[in-house]
Amino acid sequence: MTGTAAIIGGGVIGGGWAARFRLMGWDVRVFDPDPEAERKLGEVMANARRSLPGLHDAALPPEGAMTRHATVAEAVTGADWVVESVPERLEIKHRVYAEIQAANPGVIVGSSTSGYKPSELQEGAAVPGNILVTHPFNPVYLLPLAELVPSAANPPDVVTRAKAVLTEIGMHPLHVRAEIDAHIADRFLEAVWREALWLIKDGVATTEEIDDAIRYGFGLRWAQMGLFETYRIAGGEAGMRHFIAQFGPCLSWPWTKLMDVPDLTEDLIDTIAGQSDAQSGRHTIRELERIRDNNLVAMMRALKAQDWGAGALLNARDAALPKPAVDIAGPIPVMDRAVPLDWTDYNGHMNEARYLQAFSESSDRFMEIIGVDAACIAAGMSCFTAETHLRHLGEVHAGDAIRVTAQLLESKPKTYRLWLEMTVGGAVAATCEQTLIHVNLETRRASEPLPAVAERIAAIAAAHAGLPWPEGAGRAIGQGR
Amino acid sequence: MTGTAAIIGGGVIGGGWAARFRLMGWDVRVFDPDPEAERKLGEVMANARRSLPGLHDAALPPEGAMTRHATVAEAVTGADWVVESVPERLEIKHRVYAEIQAANPGVIVGSSTSGYKPSELQEGAAVPGNILVTHPFNPVYLLPLAELVPSAANPPDVVTRAKAVLTEIGMHPLHVRAEIDAHIADRFLEAVWREALWLIKDGVATTEEIDDAIRYGFGLRWAQMGLFETYRIAGGEAGMRHFIAQFGPCLSWPWTKLMDVPDLTEDLIDTIAGQSDAQSGRHTIRELERIRDNNLVAMMRALKAQDWGAGALLNARDAALPKPAVDIAGPIPVMDRAVPLDWTDYNGHMNEARYLQAFSESSDRFMEIIGVDAACIAAGMSCFTAETHLRHLGEVHAGDAIRVTAQLLESKPKTYRLWLEMTVGGAVAATCEQTLIHVNLETRRASEPLPAVAERIAAIAAAHAGLPWPEGAGRAIGQGR
Repeated sequence: MTGTAAIIGGGVIGGGWAARFRLMGWDVRVFDPDPEAERKLGEVMANARRSLPGLHDAALPPEGAMTRHATVAEAVTGADWVVESVPERLEIKHRVYAEIQAANPGVIVGSSTSGYKPSELQEGAAVPGNILVTHPFNPVYLLPLAELVPSAANPPDVVTRAKAVLTEIGMHPLHVRAEIDAHIADRFLEAVWREALWLIKDGVATTEEIDDAIRYGFGLRWAQMGLFETYRIAGGEAGMRHFIAQFGPCLSWPWTKLMDVPDLTEDLIDTIAGQSDAQSGRHTIRELERIRDNNLVAMMRALKAQDWGAGALLNARDAALPKPAVDIAGPIPVMDRAVPLDWTDYNGHMNEARYLQAFSESSDRFMEIIGVDAACIAAGMSCFTAETHLRHLGEVHAGDAIRVTAQLLESKPKTYRLWLEMTVGGAVAATCEQTLIHVNLETRRASEPLPAVAERIAAIAAAHAGLPWPEGAGRAIGQGR
Repeated sequence: MTGTAAIIGGGVIGGGWAARFRLMGWDVRVFDPDPEAERKLGEVMANARRSLPGLHDAALPPEGAMTRHATVAEAVTGADWVVESVPERLEIKHRVYAEIQAANPGVIVGSSTSGYKPSELQEGAAVPGNILVTHPFNPVYLLPLAELVPSAANPPDVVTRAKAVLTEIGMHPLHVRAEIDAHIADRFLEAVWREALWLIKDGVATTEEIDDAIRYGFGLRWAQMGLFETYRIAGGEAGMRHFIAQFGPCLSWPWTKLMDVPDLTEDLIDTIAGQSDAQSGRHTIRELERIRDNNLVAMMRALKAQDWGAGALLNARDAALPKPAVDIAGPIPVMDRAVPLDWTDYNGHMNEARYLQAFSESSDRFMEIIGVDAACIAAGMSCFTAETHLRHLGEVHAGDAIRVTAQLLESKPKTYRLWLEMTVGGAVAATCEQTLIHVNLETRRASEPLPAVAERIAAIAAAHAGLPWPEGAGRAIGQGR
């Protein structure tokens, strides 16, 4: 399911939505009267192109097109979804909704507002039930959270459809069941921001010290488990109840006295801005954006390998992406993907170990095709690699679309030999020859595979017997002496 | 610099300190009268052993010993450092300090208190200047943050020494220059906890929804950049000042009304505990601990590859770890390390791509030895791998201590051939034969190396010419047809 999304307001947030929709295969129609909009949209899209596709372990649909439009009415005509990311002033939002619904009354409008309640947004609308909050987090093209906040005026099918669209573009729609100011996440951001202002105003800590206090400690905990699951562990086997009994009383003493809001005087703003320059001023904002995206991609892919948190969301989304069709008549396509940001190294190209990671995952896909899948492994039979011969024939860079095909060179009762070829735009970038052993996971020894697997391998072996022998197969490195 | 640390109080926090000190080569002497202490210390140590050593890219010093002692006085005798992790009651802490300083008045005592100010801890002490706050975060053996809070009574050399010890055991001592209740980080935790209690009490969100709001959104941002650097980006090229101008005003409306503290009634506790069971109850606490540690190791290693945040701290600590001595007379040791948690796969052993990662990093170390180091690469000359032949001869598991040696098989004007052998406890687990090309990074083409590099290679080639030819070198996979 792809479609057309209209983006009203093309700043950092609207641009992030546009990039995410396009990279997930949707066409986008943008309205933004800002003369700088073209440049801003292009910058966000460039960041998204280098970071999002490689997060996924399968190829995303072809990138959607972007068109720009002179009026809101024109932008939303024919759209299947509307993103509203205009400034946080209610009268502006109301005016925009009126224009949208005059031109396309049936379309759902998701507002990126971080503060307003959906019932406030809906006031005076022609079709209040088609307006709700879909609050994303910067960078929108990477972070999966979208707070989905309906009011009582939204019919259930609008909420269902909104969840489907957000999930389709790789987000996690967090259904906020009671509308409140600032939804959920920004309540926390606000609380932390208040405390941070006090710490700076009172001269207790600088912006950098505060950031270090977060990123070297609880930030790492929260990135994967959040608040309550973390504290559940702190409570030990006795769990949450014990944790509250132990730490709850602290709540009423003494730091609650610091909950007033400090005045944002010019002095305080100068202090914060100056400290922030000292902390981060050696990087431009564009550099910081790329550093942030590199870090997020690396951490999200790390969580993906653990199938946890934001990584588990990615795995779920990948499961719905099409795999290359299995046709055993020729070399079988076993991987189509973009090279992730975190696969490159100090030489500026894909690190050699990542070639083997790509080939290893390709080999896993071949295993799946012959029936050595999760169920087979759970039943105690798998395949281990005994030997690998890897040749690097061309450089591969982050973002490149790589394809890997598998040719079965040889099949014996307990082993098989595979030829994997990686291409970028049709040119061979690397080859990998592997011997794999069918292994009984209990004895950890070579063993004949299950009959269904043996049958499937035999069929592929028969089909591949007539294929030309690949150049380089069976070759050694250098010569013995 | 290693030494002996006394740990007074062996719960989750004291046990975490003990594990970190031991794995960094310190001996620890524990006092904890709890009959369960032995079991608890053992559980934390088991978690630490499986997760900490592999975080580092070089071998840690040999693990230190642990002894248990019947009195505080006996535990602190001869200690170079004392950790105080007793319950958060001032009269208990004062009594413990008196016992410590009666037996060892010269030793520095770092308190794990999350709430008390150092001046409160020092009241009535024999040597107030030797007591300060070193507040860690659970799990202490993984998270690098330690808030170091002295008072005016602590002489500068005590603070300097405390920083050195914390850095030595792989932590980041965040020097809090003004003592306040709850230091810095817990101010934020407290603020977020208050907001969370309100959201649950008001029925706006469940524990799981709150955790999702954190871990799918700002948690990922905070794990690597914290609050201010994240907002600096949000402000765009205009920076922090623009961000505050744009978002500052929100501070005074409307969600500040929610800063009171909700009463922790039985009802509210039941609600939280019930929701937490629904969210996480399918895992035991031990399982959650291991999931958390797997996630933290994977994310911290991801940040390490980006040399950022907690990962940059790890790199800095690694730089101080000894590398295997370079002796070119025989195969040269190029890697000594523990297999990190995130290198294993669904088969329960080290993933094949991680073998190549270990060999690739070993090959990088060989490059460094021949003079192709960071400076050489910056000057435009590097080495690219052309071909690799990998054989898996034994299974390797997370935590295994692996050693890799490098033998130079052949050297030509623009290429060289390397034989890498990975052993675990002396047994060969894998071999890797590689051809590398000297490359000019501008032309991206083969090129003769710098003279100093050529000279160094020639010396190694001469030394290795007499070594026995390794079994398996120059071998192909299977046969051509």
